[in-house]
Amino acid sequence: MKSLVLGGARSGKSRLAEQRVLAYEGERPIYIATAWGGNGMDGDAEMQQRIKKHQQERSSRFSVVEEQLHLAETLTKYDGIGVVFLVDCLTLWLNNCLHHKVWQQEKSALLELLPQLKGHIVFVSNEVGSGIVPMGELNRQFADEAGWLNQALAKLCDQVDLVVAGCVLNLKKGVL
Amino acid sequence: MKSLVLGGARSGKSRLAEQRVLAYEGERPIYIATAWGGNGMDGDAEMQQRIKKHQQERSSRFSVVEEQLHLAETLTKYDGIGVVFLVDCLTLWLNNCLHHKVWQQEKSALLELLPQLKGHIVFVSNEVGSGIVPMGELNRQFADEAGWLNQALAKLCDQVDLVVAGCVLNLKKGVL
Amino acid sequence: MKSLVLGGARSGKSRLAEQRVLAYEGERPIYIATAWGGNGMDGDAEMQQRIKKHQQERSSRFSVVEEQLHLAETLTKYDGIGVVFLVDCLTLWLNNCLHHKVWQQEKSALLELLPQLKGHIVFVSNEVGSGIVPMGELNRQFADEAGWLNQALAKLCDQVDLVVAGCVLNLKKGVL
Repeated sequence: MKSLVLGGARSGKSRLAEQRVLAYEGERPIYIATAWGGNGMDGDAEMQQRIKKHQQERSSRFSVVEEQLHLAETLTKYDGIGVVFLVDCLTLWLNNCLHHKVWQQEKSALLELLPQLKGHIVFVSNEVGSGIVPMGELNRQFADEAGWLNQALAKLCDQVDLVVAGCVLNLKKGVL
Repeated sequence: MKSLVLGGARSGKSRLAEQRVLAYEGERPIYIATAWGGNGMDGDAEMQQRIKKHQQERSSRFSVVEEQLHLAETLTKYDGIGVVFLVDCLTLWLNNCLHHKVWQQEKSALLELLPQLKGHIVFVSNEVGSGIVPMGELNRQFADEAGWLNQALAKLCDQVDLVVAGCVLNLKKGVL
Repeated sequence: MKSLVLGGARSGKSRLAEQRVLAYEGERPIYIATAWGGNGMDGDAEMQQRIKKHQQERSSRFSVVEEQLHLAETLTKYDGIGVVFLVDCLTLWLNNCLHHKVWQQEKSALLELLPQLKGHIVFVSNEVGSGIVPMGELNRQFADEAGWLNQALAKLCDQVDLVVAGCVLNLKKGVL
């Protein structure tokens, strides 16, 4: 089962994704955290705080793997029957990959791997394209790539949900 | 019955909320307006115009109470069986409270009051987290707090709806 | 049949609209492209690239008409039984009309024409109001007008859909 959880900032999408993953009883949940303190939006301090908050909220029932760039490689390394992955979140991963200029290869590697993945996986991704077209070419590139990635993954996933204010709108029905 | 109406800018959320409130026949509808001309986005003139437009659109069938900060206090003052409140809108209230550095106490007061409220209430709130992560720490704080507030209220409300282009997507089903 | 397809940037809304139009077998599909290279977000080069990409993706099965401003006039010129229009997209048209200060008359002309249109029509429009309130009065005017336009068209259309990550959420049910 492959699942994609979409939502805006502070929509409750991470919490839903964690509940989904923990519902697979008896399996080994692996939390792949893509956040990276060194990218600094307004400097590192704020981002570090955000990461710390996420870590605190994260259930102690996960094995946490930090991976900012090589997502497909990391998934391959830990994959297997009985494994359940949570990837939170794809837009931070995209941001990191654009910054390090490895986006095209990392994206292709993930999309190629996904159909062959043995474990279950729940992706968390931000909806970023429903505001005003942002200033700056880099921001527009980011919004474009995020939208294309979400589309590509939604196509490959069995279930897609949109979270709004903690409420769930199912966009594509998954069957376990 | 507690109801939350979410939507982007100019989505038709205020109109839906007003219809909801006016559907409670025979009850006394109280419109709590949170807009504040003095906060000035690009100066007061534009905000004043926006407020004026809202006032003109507002049905003459409401008693209007203006309250920019102390929402829980105002609700308590007017609460009672047979009262129907419309609060429009929560994100302006959040903005005012952040500006005056009273957000945490005002938020807590509202969330504590809500389960004990005797009257009906319809909240209007903006969905602001589905665009690009905004520039500036204050903007990000605003987006974070708006998202968390919407989640907290959605949990406490009986019904939650998302308005898109004047069309209604029910997110949580209410029963009168 | 009049249809409105809404979605954020890179949501897959254009592809859905094209599928809708091509599903009218035996009819003559006319693609009205509103993009304009000369408006330059960060200069013409980027916009030209975006237009070119759209042209490449556009099926060769459409007759393409480029019209940046006078949408109602163009629709009237080509209208007739058996015609199917695709207008992609309304928010670029809005942007062009605001720039040339012809918005109010062009908007009125479209809204007046629509109920009398003989052909089928599928509109594509951006959801731009679900992020942070943008900086700059012009941006806010754009977001306001886009929201109002989407509401007005949603009311006049038989079917309204929201596209998120290539998945379709029906907002208003159409019957052919």
